Amino acid sequence: MTGARDLSLPREINDPAVIDRAHMFHPGTHLADFASGELPSQIITGGEGIYVTDRDGHRMIDGFAGLWCVNVGYGRTEIADAVHAQMAKLSYYHAYNGNSNEPAIELAGRIAGMIGLDMNHVFYGLSGSDSNETNAKIVWYYHRILGKPEKRKLIARQRSYHGSGVLSGSLTGQPGFHGLFGLPLPEVIHVSAPHHWLDAHPGETERAYSRRLAQELEATILSEGPETVAAFFAEPVVGSGGILPSPEGYWEEVQQVLRRYDVLLVADEVVTGFGRTGAAFGSHLYGIRPDLMALAKGLSSGYLPLSASVVSDRVWQVLEEGTRQNGPFIHGWTYSAHPVCAAAALANLDIIDREGLIENARDTGAYFQQCLREAFGNHPMVGEVRGVGLLAAVDFVEQRSPRQFFDPARRIGAQVTETARRKGLIVRSMPRIDGIGFAPPLTLTRAEADQIVDIARSATQEIAATL
Amino acid sequence: MTGARDLSLPREINDPAVIDRAHMFHPGTHLADFASGELPSQIITGGEGIYVTDRDGHRMIDGFAGLWCVNVGYGRTEIADAVHAQMAKLSYYHAYNGNSNEPAIELAGRIAGMIGLDMNHVFYGLSGSDSNETNAKIVWYYHRILGKPEKRKLIARQRSYHGSGVLSGSLTGQPGFHGLFGLPLPEVIHVSAPHHWLDAHPGETERAYSRRLAQELEATILSEGPETVAAFFAEPVVGSGGILPSPEGYWEEVQQVLRRYDVLLVADEVVTGFGRTGAAFGSHLYGIRPDLMALAKGLSSGYLPLSASVVSDRVWQVLEEGTRQNGPFIHGWTYSAHPVCAAAALANLDIIDREGLIENARDTGAYFQQCLREAFGNHPMVGEVRGVGLLAAVDFVEQRSPRQFFDPARRIGAQVTETARRKGLIVRSMPRIDGIGFAPPLTLTRAEADQIVDIARSATQEIAATL
Ligand SMILES: Cc1ncc(COP(=O)(O)O)c(C=O)c1O
Ligand SMILES: Cc1ncc(COP(=O)(O)O)c(C=O)c1O
Repeated sequence: MTGARDLSLPREINDPAVIDRAHMFHPGTHLADFASGELPSQIITGGEGIYVTDRDGHRMIDGFAGLWCVNVGYGRTEIADAVHAQMAKLSYYHAYNGNSNEPAIELAGRIAGMIGLDMNHVFYGLSGSDSNETNAKIVWYYHRILGKPEKRKLIARQRSYHGSGVLSGSLTGQPGFHGLFGLPLPEVIHVSAPHHWLDAHPGETERAYSRRLAQELEATILSEGPETVAAFFAEPVVGSGGILPSPEGYWEEVQQVLRRYDVLLVADEVVTGFGRTGAAFGSHLYGIRPDLMALAKGLSSGYLPLSASVVSDRVWQVLEEGTRQNGPFIHGWTYSAHPVCAAAALANLDIIDREGLIENARDTGAYFQQCLREAFGNHPMVGEVRGVGLLAAVDFVEQRSPRQFFDPARRIGAQVTETARRKGLIVRSMPRIDGIGFAPPLTLTRAEADQIVDIARSATQEIAATL
Repeated sequence: MTGARDLSLPREINDPAVIDRAHMFHPGTHLADFASGELPSQIITGGEGIYVTDRDGHRMIDGFAGLWCVNVGYGRTEIADAVHAQMAKLSYYHAYNGNSNEPAIELAGRIAGMIGLDMNHVFYGLSGSDSNETNAKIVWYYHRILGKPEKRKLIARQRSYHGSGVLSGSLTGQPGFHGLFGLPLPEVIHVSAPHHWLDAHPGETERAYSRRLAQELEATILSEGPETVAAFFAEPVVGSGGILPSPEGYWEEVQQVLRRYDVLLVADEVVTGFGRTGAAFGSHLYGIRPDLMALAKGLSSGYLPLSASVVSDRVWQVLEEGTRQNGPFIHGWTYSAHPVCAAAALANLDIIDREGLIENARDTGAYFQQCLREAFGNHPMVGEVRGVGLLAAVDFVEQRSPRQFFDPARRIGAQVTETARRKGLIVRSMPRIDGIGFAPPLTLTRAEADQIVDIARSATQEIAATL
């Protein structure tokens, strides 16, 4: 009746790599190469501070904090203890229809307090992607309650990353997330991301460039028809699309355009939230006043899955009115406001506060940025070093002036990444740049910053020597 | 710079209900009524076995296992201990680009072993909703690799629940999830769900009814054009749409139609997976051979968020070929294959195995179904008692014959639910039936089953007496 069968793998049964290749469908992976063994097995078994260790005992600095999420570093027993205590007390209860639990409540107040900006209403999810699905649904609901159901189009930016769901993946401005899935959905329109080094006209200042991008945004809204444009989704610092701090004046200009046409602003702070840039939120750094915000990653430092959509008072009033007219707001996840995940986040925020990790991201971040510029700024293979706080990228070029890029088939960024890994440092070759990205835990010390820069430089040298 | 403000609530600062109303945006909730206090605050603080306790010390049997997910019951220290140990060892690492971790690997092998049916490839997510977003993307990718990009429409059923994302919420066949969000997406088409009691013609047998629904499905595929129809999503037992076990012959007939037109079958086993129906999976119960499967809830018993999309070998081969042609499969979540969530799931499956909970769901489930039929079968206010395993519903009617329903505005199901709660039993009034639903933990004993039935009957009597 139950039809179960034995898991009868051959004698290699004790080798997890065999089961891995046979049964795990990895995200973002070349499935055929992984199944065949062409892509190496990389089983991570332990983590402590800024280090992770693989199954062969190879210990590496994790210069990318998992996927820029392990902000407090690995192996924090305070979080494990808080999780254990909460799980023993109440392992789960749902939050539908006004049900609630103490850690989720406390955390909601704390998130609102940290953000300020009249953003007081916290909807919980599990992933950055689902927080953007929620945000899109809130946007649509909002305009509909205000009598404008035709305000439905969502503008995002090329190079952006907003997730992998059908809508959140449509918002994502990277072709790899679209073509083979028949996306983006027609509701989504992409405009340029700010990348001054790559895209500014010769001699164009950051301010002038920002104004030009705001004009492009305005022209897009006008050509689509402002009465059809619902919201603008954007990361304060573009993350996986290249680690792009916003140029001077960008947010001032863009927010003026959005206000002019009643287009809601959704700040995707999944990477930038909770200190990564040296400010608590990217919105604080740049003077952004979002209508909605997406949070994940640093909220729990990845110890458990947790995300949030934070709603401003202005939008909230419309949502309340919507339920007055129509009854309950019919949206949610089984694991919204999970008490154990909330307990992990509270313990994580305690560490961030107690150890001053936001301030450390700012101060040690400034030191790290300076070291990177010293190490790479004049390197003949480096086009640009950029970043803010503990978020940085180094872009490789074949020739600096006139600028000439490497043939992508040579995989220079990927080669440097692989070499650095052998030397004990994990960095990330970015999907949309030929370079390497850094996002270490916010606990980073100056000595650790030196180590990261040393290994990255030596890996770069090693690849440069083969060219 | 960081712009933080104090969380300056008034003197009630120590009352979590105040913070709850001010800062938590609850799923599926009347926001205005909750904010104003019209909707009561229900803060759950503890759980043990089949019981939960609220902040006022009110202890209740949770006859719905959270949201039909806490299959092993509350307060399992084995799971808390496993989570603590894994979190101390490796709190997180990502699984992109072939990266992996031991608990996720072991769990993938174990899931594949439990399912059988040549379904060997496990993609991890966090929620049932995201597993369906993943499933839809896999379906679209699959047909595209096979040269049929126009095979894109997804058929789901009215009354179904597949999630709350923009696509998964479109699949959901319940109007409340659509109208105010401008959904469903045009890719999604809904056909009838099987509900023999409600919808069969007078005298129509289950078999004949099943054949009629299969014909409706076939007619829909033909009118849409089979070359445009990509997949059929369905729950083996419809869950939140009314708890509807499948009528005799339904899956045999439906699968024939799907095969005839090369339409993939996605079995949404989010509720039915891991023993709820008395079989390990609903697919085993009904002889379903899915191409893809969605799992969540019982996989971790809700102790931590975890879901999975399981891919059959036949579909997997096409995905591998896709990556041979195009490079990596560009889809994933930061928290895919989270090692701590996987460790929780392993400990959960250990309990299910050790305590024989699938067999208990079958045996105690049969007893429970019988008790419900004895208690409610001839009740003048009851139209139908139905269910399988530890999944059951009682539908209320104003008059049995000729059948007459209550005016929904009288909220009979909701009133019974509220009364039962006061008497110490949580059941769920369902969005699409005027009745009550049961889905207790799979640890249920016969004595506990008796208690649930007793309280439910007495609550029903109490409301009946007011009519
Ligand atoms: C800016 C941003 N938004 C959203 C997401 C999606 O988050 P998740 O992977 O948790 O769905 C990410 C993930 O990297 C991100 O960087
Ligand atoms: C059958 C089914 N599929 C999918 C889901 C969505 O799961 P989640 O709430 O975890 O997103 C649910 C949730 O109740 C469900 O019952």
